[in-house]
Amino acid sequence: MKAIALNATLKTSDGDPSSTEKMLELLLSELEKEGVDGEIVRLADLNIKPGVKSDEGEDDDWPEVRSRVLAADILVLGTPVWLGQPSSVAKRALERMNAFLSEKDDGGRMVSYNRVAAVAVVGNEDGAHHISAELYQALNDVGFTLAPNAVCYWVGEAMGGTDFKELDKTPDPVSSAATMLARNTVHLARLLKANVYPPVS
Amino acid sequence: MKAIALNATLKTSDGDPSSTEKMLELLLSELEKEGVDGEIVRLADLNIKPGVKSDEGEDDDWPEVRSRVLAADILVLGTPVWLGQPSSVAKRALERMNAFLSEKDDGGRMVSYNRVAAVAVVGNEDGAHHISAELYQALNDVGFTLAPNAVCYWVGEAMGGTDFKELDKTPDPVSSAATMLARNTVHLARLLKANVYPPVS
Amino acid sequence: MKAIALNATLKTSDGDPSSTEKMLELLLSELEKEGVDGEIVRLADLNIKPGVKSDEGEDDDWPEVRSRVLAADILVLGTPVWLGQPSSVAKRALERMNAFLSEKDDGGRMVSYNRVAAVAVVGNEDGAHHISAELYQALNDVGFTLAPNAVCYWVGEAMGGTDFKELDKTPDPVSSAATMLARNTVHLARLLKANVYPPVS
Amino acid sequence: MKAIALNATLKTSDGDPSSTEKMLELLLSELEKEGVDGEIVRLADLNIKPGVKSDEGEDDDWPEVRSRVLAADILVLGTPVWLGQPSSVAKRALERMNAFLSEKDDGGRMVSYNRVAAVAVVGNEDGAHHISAELYQALNDVGFTLAPNAVCYWVGEAMGGTDFKELDKTPDPVSSAATMLARNTVHLARLLKANVYPPVS
Repeated sequence: MKAIALNATLKTSDGDPSSTEKMLELLLSELEKEGVDGEIVRLADLNIKPGVKSDEGEDDDWPEVRSRVLAADILVLGTPVWLGQPSSVAKRALERMNAFLSEKDDGGRMVSYNRVAAVAVVGNEDGAHHISAELYQALNDVGFTLAPNAVCYWVGEAMGGTDFKELDKTPDPVSSAATMLARNTVHLARLLKANVYPPVS
Repeated sequence: MKAIALNATLKTSDGDPSSTEKMLELLLSELEKEGVDGEIVRLADLNIKPGVKSDEGEDDDWPEVRSRVLAADILVLGTPVWLGQPSSVAKRALERMNAFLSEKDDGGRMVSYNRVAAVAVVGNEDGAHHISAELYQALNDVGFTLAPNAVCYWVGEAMGGTDFKELDKTPDPVSSAATMLARNTVHLARLLKANVYPPVS
Repeated sequence: MKAIALNATLKTSDGDPSSTEKMLELLLSELEKEGVDGEIVRLADLNIKPGVKSDEGEDDDWPEVRSRVLAADILVLGTPVWLGQPSSVAKRALERMNAFLSEKDDGGRMVSYNRVAAVAVVGNEDGAHHISAELYQALNDVGFTLAPNAVCYWVGEAMGGTDFKELDKTPDPVSSAATMLARNTVHLARLLKANVYPPVS
Repeated sequence: MKAIALNATLKTSDGDPSSTEKMLELLLSELEKEGVDGEIVRLADLNIKPGVKSDEGEDDDWPEVRSRVLAADILVLGTPVWLGQPSSVAKRALERMNAFLSEKDDGGRMVSYNRVAAVAVVGNEDGAHHISAELYQALNDVGFTLAPNAVCYWVGEAMGGTDFKELDKTPDPVSSAATMLARNTVHLARLLKANVYPPVS
């Protein structure tokens, strides 16, 4: 089983450390315990062009990311919170997956079917539930399945300023959520790998 | 296999016909083709008391509804659109399911686990995607699994006034969405019935 | 100048103390410093019937609340967070204000025009931004004006369990937000009282 | 009085016509009737770098856009609908305005205060209310004031495929909404220009 985690931080890899990266590393380590190989793709390092097609032409890095998404059994979309909402980088990736709506396999199913998605959200304060709602809906619209408790998140107290990456220790509820997310998601991905959704017609 | 559909219209059964009811009947007929027995519960006919416990005391009709939800393999939550948002009746049902967060089985899993949820949305105009987002998130938080394309919806043109119940014919995209929702949801519910999520510890 | 605060907690007045009430009291004390008389209405104590008309018949307590809303210059809608979303009681009040869409004054403006709205949100953890988004949109749709920073909120750390009412001291950022909300809202309400929106035609 | 409209379509000016542009032109023509000079900025033509500062360094086109936003009395943010949500380009602009949270004038107010914002949304089908909710909240968080009915939108029937730019005639409800938005917004912008919010002190 393979997982791909998209890190939708606004920061490139050569900048400050990313709290979202830290959360995704936690999730990948839990997925690894379930026998899943994972990798993280930092979207801000790439040129993901605006648009809703799978290939937006010259210098577009999305086709390569798209191939890796479709080669994986599990997609984790990780985003920071800005203004209580998902990042523009996360939205850009979802817009590009909008193309799946018209890309079908032989059975008339979207090419993304039979994959399980999960969500990671990190911010100073507030916003995780709404972000999981928006990401669940967009990911479900473009063909992904969602296991229960498909989000792992951390945010601080209202109007606080501490970052997840600054915490000395991962809070227990976050660790538990990561474990549960990994187990549920892998269980469901295994079932769907062995038993694909019925063809549309 | 059994399905329960909760109709969260603001109207009681003795009032005007409900467009949400018509949509839920369409979904139940599609589920029936997949071998699933279904029933519709009109929440506005009942006294679903405010609160976040499974039993809010005297005259509370939720405990009876809750039993039927847990006796089913599939939950369909149907809501009308008001101000682009889910109805207060839908929200009330979700608040009562908040109790699942602390109701666990022997394996430490919420009692709602291993059930698949789907969503139906009907309005004059606009609001379906947001409503599916909010309902997906709340249902996922309280333990339900979501198959791809887990919503069937109809809304008219911006600022329009036609109701779904007034349409002479169900639009083709709605029929197709209903069929796909039923097939995906039943496929997933069968898999989970035979292969429950792993215990938490 | 008059303000009315609607408390959309799920609890009646004879139950446990309400964190939302504590937040609304803070806001009313700040509004009072600006010369505004305020009152709090606990919606869960009343029979606000489901529907989208201003009067839903026998035993409906909304007509009385509606009169007080329209007699005020400022409306504060206060809600607890459940599942990251506004309460069913808050939604119920908004559905009833949906009737303003077709209730016009001599100038063709909704009867709610020239009033300023603000929002209060309280929860254990996470959800305030989304709730302010939903409430802003619904309140704006039904005719209210919004001053900048129109929300005062408190939520704790992710997956935490402390209630606002349990805090020994109101956190400084909350106090500052309350002051700013009061000043901005009153400033705008005064301007609109003296200079109403132009008639529609 | 001056207005700036940000067009957050995913398309550059040398591509297909933009439905969002058509909607913004309608709004600017209504604003012009109220004596307001307006201009449209196509964000996709520019290099708006990811980040939450007002200047993200070399080749960043945001500082120039930011100056024009602050030179205007009215900001209109126009976005297409993708997956029922605002575009990544709209989100990018909001993230850059996040910097206003720490940019204060002599009175301790955000530099964006005393400006009125409005929203334009265009899509094939569904999504306008949610988008206005998210944009209202983000714009309000970063200091803008909102007049009643601050959105003008068009979307078609559920799962439809017609674009706003393909309509032979602007539907009457859209024309009326545009007129009302312009009148309310200009009325409020005039009041705030003459009567700024009180200093924070």
